Amino acid sequence: MLSEFELIARYFDRPQAPDGVVKLGVGDDCALLLPPPGQTLAVSTDMLVEGRHFFADADPEKLGHKALAVNLSDLAAMGAKPMAFTLALALPSADASWLAGFAQGLFALADAEGIRLIGGDTTRGPLNLCITVMGSVPEDEALRRDGARAGDDLWVSGTLGDARLALEVLQGKSMLPDHLMALAEERLHRPIPRCALGMALRGIAHAAIDVSDGLLGDLGHLLARSQLGAEIHATSLPAGPALAQQPADSRIDYMLNGGDDYELCFTSPPEQRDAVLSAAASTSTSVSRIGSLKTGAGIQIVDAAGKSLPFTSHSFDHFG
Amino acid sequence: MLSEFELIARYFDRPQAPDGVVKLGVGDDCALLLPPPGQTLAVSTDMLVEGRHFFADADPEKLGHKALAVNLSDLAAMGAKPMAFTLALALPSADASWLAGFAQGLFALADAEGIRLIGGDTTRGPLNLCITVMGSVPEDEALRRDGARAGDDLWVSGTLGDARLALEVLQGKSMLPDHLMALAEERLHRPIPRCALGMALRGIAHAAIDVSDGLLGDLGHLLARSQLGAEIHATSLPAGPALAQQPADSRIDYMLNGGDDYELCFTSPPEQRDAVLSAAASTSTSVSRIGSLKTGAGIQIVDAAGKSLPFTSHSFDHFG
Repeated sequence: MLSEFELIARYFDRPQAPDGVVKLGVGDDCALLLPPPGQTLAVSTDMLVEGRHFFADADPEKLGHKALAVNLSDLAAMGAKPMAFTLALALPSADASWLAGFAQGLFALADAEGIRLIGGDTTRGPLNLCITVMGSVPEDEALRRDGARAGDDLWVSGTLGDARLALEVLQGKSMLPDHLMALAEERLHRPIPRCALGMALRGIAHAAIDVSDGLLGDLGHLLARSQLGAEIHATSLPAGPALAQQPADSRIDYMLNGGDDYELCFTSPPEQRDAVLSAAASTSTSVSRIGSLKTGAGIQIVDAAGKSLPFTSHSFDHFG
Repeated sequence: MLSEFELIARYFDRPQAPDGVVKLGVGDDCALLLPPPGQTLAVSTDMLVEGRHFFADADPEKLGHKALAVNLSDLAAMGAKPMAFTLALALPSADASWLAGFAQGLFALADAEGIRLIGGDTTRGPLNLCITVMGSVPEDEALRRDGARAGDDLWVSGTLGDARLALEVLQGKSMLPDHLMALAEERLHRPIPRCALGMALRGIAHAAIDVSDGLLGDLGHLLARSQLGAEIHATSLPAGPALAQQPADSRIDYMLNGGDDYELCFTSPPEQRDAVLSAAASTSTSVSRIGSLKTGAGIQIVDAAGKSLPFTSHSFDHFG
């Protein structure tokens, strides 16, 4: 059996020289970071638990990717540039092949985003992954939830609902042809954090949130903080390629309430439409204008004729 | 049953205005911090698992204190000033009285150290607490593990071994009179992070580590990073008040290998002895000079006559 320190060294300690940001990495009581002068440090933490956020037999490589991706998605929603992350890991046993796969998925994404693992903790226990990410953003350009204004356009990046569709299939509640399931599973297991888009939206978007628990639920948090309501045009919602071939009712429900999308939902004034489209194009990300913000409270879903549709939020609640 | 968001709001969302450090706290995708200009950000994360780091029936108030204390101890060992922390929490159920007690212990220590909870995550799962702390320290004054020099004095703060003694009693392996057990349990359940001492040692100590897994094991990490050995004078080791009344053999073993002490082990040149004592006095912390650093490798334990004693490290390994 590997000792704890051997485990850390073998899979997670990748010796790297200090750089402009990371002055001291893994191996001391603390890591030392130097954020860009004059910028705020954006910090977010997410915990993933076996049986709750992923299946016990989840592919460790996909899990390594996803654990970091969902945290980076929070930086994206703030418009922050990723800097570094810590990883705390409880494992039922020191399984070398599991760790090798997990580290591969984790570091592939970290390398793609140009960030380093700067510290962590490993212990024995029921499988649990806790990542804390740090990024930088000028304070007055951060995409907060409370910055939306009445009359703002409502936008969402990428597509919605395929992750939920894949989950339903994996749970035996739905069926899909193999080629569509492959597309949908990619969205469930390998979400792409929209960091580049978030940074490109600095100074353009008024407010943003990432869609992790379902569009209606997450938009609800943004609206609550901004004290506004919204109208969503059902026909403008961007269905994922697998979901696009499903019946209209479940299609709209999955886009509104699916969860695990890790897209950005953001607001910006109508005069910034060209700027939003340029930011999207420059970061190779699709965006859809799905509605607008209103005074008052609540979210109205309307069809092409402006008629209100009876969809309501049933956002995922980890204690529901 | 409380919803996840109600849980967070009730126990962990303490609305506070932005201050010089925390520009945005709980409630957005990320928190925003502004570290002091020109200083590095010190970051550490620790995960505590039920059955591994604490008993299933642990007092939640003590657990709240300890979960934060062990993280702050890492900042102390770096000489960093605590700034803020995040908390990720997996809970088997939304137990209001447990949460109230946990929050009380957590925030009492946070308030005493003048730091705020800036973000977090709660989910259902086997009980697991993951805290990430952030502090600030000038890069060239950080108390790293790799800064020790041959000839340095070796120091330790406070006393050692009482936490381990309390654990042995709780596990039924040892017995203590009630008044001594009360002292020992206080050390096990309510460690005091040595943040003030760590900051006072900036510019005085060459290297430091906190003693969490046992003095020999933790000192071994410091020596490995500094590529040195050490000699420890057994008679200079500071026993906790409960341990001081135990037989000599177990007393020395518990001080060397006990774990859960959360004291600082640090090195400084002999010409700084007065400065070390002043730093200790100014922060109302006792310190003991327990040996010195040598070229070569390994740790020798010697008695008053300079004779080598046969104590070896059996440092706690979370996967051992």
